[in-house]
Amino acid sequence: MDVEAYLGACAGRVEGVLEKVLPGVDEAPRDLHRAMRHLVFPGGKRIRPALAIAGAEAAGCPSEAALPMAAAVELVHTYSLIHDDLPCMDDDAERRGRPTVHVVYGEAVAVLAGDALLALAFELLAGGDGAPERRMAAVGELARAAGSRNLVGGQADDLSLAESEATEAAVSSIHRRKTAALMAAASAGGALLAGADGDDVACLRSFGEKVGLAFQIADDLLDDGRDEPASMVRLLGREEAARRSESLLAAAVAELARFGGRAAPLRELARFAARRAR
Amino acid sequence: MDVEAYLGACAGRVEGVLEKVLPGVDEAPRDLHRAMRHLVFPGGKRIRPALAIAGAEAAGCPSEAALPMAAAVELVHTYSLIHDDLPCMDDDAERRGRPTVHVVYGEAVAVLAGDALLALAFELLAGGDGAPERRMAAVGELARAAGSRNLVGGQADDLSLAESEATEAAVSSIHRRKTAALMAAASAGGALLAGADGDDVACLRSFGEKVGLAFQIADDLLDDGRDEPASMVRLLGREEAARRSESLLAAAVAELARFGGRAAPLRELARFAARRAR
Repeated sequence: MDVEAYLGACAGRVEGVLEKVLPGVDEAPRDLHRAMRHLVFPGGKRIRPALAIAGAEAAGCPSEAALPMAAAVELVHTYSLIHDDLPCMDDDAERRGRPTVHVVYGEAVAVLAGDALLALAFELLAGGDGAPERRMAAVGELARAAGSRNLVGGQADDLSLAESEATEAAVSSIHRRKTAALMAAASAGGALLAGADGDDVACLRSFGEKVGLAFQIADDLLDDGRDEPASMVRLLGREEAARRSESLLAAAVAELARFGGRAAPLRELARFAARRAR
Repeated sequence: MDVEAYLGACAGRVEGVLEKVLPGVDEAPRDLHRAMRHLVFPGGKRIRPALAIAGAEAAGCPSEAALPMAAAVELVHTYSLIHDDLPCMDDDAERRGRPTVHVVYGEAVAVLAGDALLALAFELLAGGDGAPERRMAAVGELARAAGSRNLVGGQADDLSLAESEATEAAVSSIHRRKTAALMAAASAGGALLAGADGDDVACLRSFGEKVGLAFQIADDLLDDGRDEPASMVRLLGREEAARRSESLLAAAVAELARFGGRAAPLRELARFAARRAR
């Protein structure tokens, strides 16, 4: 299968949802609503939404029902990038070849746009039409992944990690929380929202976590010049880091055995994420 | 009835929930988790949680079932204060007689602590044990109140409002979104989570919005020296502003007619909020 075509098709579907739920550029406050859209469109590869959609397909559920989770995960991902780019965090002026949100709209609006995207993710999940208990579980899955024990805590530790503390365990813990938790929530949450049973959801969560860890290493391999403390490449060297990524990928794919051929897109997405990244 | 005693009792109950859901001060990342608790404890009067509890009582529902909403609303209120105090927003070094979160823990941790409190509010609602459809509706109620069309949008407009644009309509719109929407969600959301019917919930929402508008005017009356563009006191003078607050209070109390004696605490809370504030 052509994974880029699959990603493109998923992107098209999830962008339809995002376009509908995000307030328009002419709705007041205009700067805030434009800032919210700035990094959502055109966006990146939409790997997380694709994981949500492919996860539902692997579990034999209608992928249409996974779309709110696919879009909600992308909103959370985007909010986290906007806040990570802020001057008080990574202080990045550019992302995906464009000026970052705070460069265009100012710091205050960038903070608020991130806040509003996070709230919108939950509004979107609450407003869908699946069974309430599934939507509820999806809210819980996403909120845990976004919270201080995962995404936010990983970013806090990433910011404060000193070179001398950058052991393999510390770096892996940061990657698990900052990157892998949201990819796990994406992989599991789409299926969960679409009606998969608990065992399938647990396998997909474990799959997503491993893919996320592999993805982060691949990202560090691509971005070798960065030389930050929380990098497996810095810690283990390129060769060993690449081996870890491959072994995480194999472990991720092994989680999919129960799904047979229905998991083909998920397998390809895992390879894409672990070997290419972004 | 003694409204201060009622507030104290509500505060005690909601603090029990907050204590349980917030990670402990020794859980890593310690700075992040301490920053999350810094403004939650000791906290303020807990008016919003009291509205959630009293709203459920007014609708004849068990107030115990409203506690997750009471706590979630307080988490959202606290997150919004932490972000509002940031140097890029109101740049406040002190709140409730203590240094603000960014002064103690730095800007990055303050942004992240706010983010994590917002996510935790939804995690808390998703994890409760009421009927899923009610928890789902509560998530929707809170997410809408927190989003760009309410809380965040109100703050964005408050920050950018020029004196020349501060008409009564503009100021009232800011107060409605920045202050009243969350008080409306508190008043309605407790009852909604506890099982109230749609008509009762709608009356409580309308009550909470009017109380919130009255509360904001009372707050401006207390804080007369501030002289910001978005102040009814600045716009109308003290006397007329106080009259508006009283008339909003009367309109709020009128919404409670259907609930009879069960709404006594809610009436007293409304008077307390409109006449004293904070």
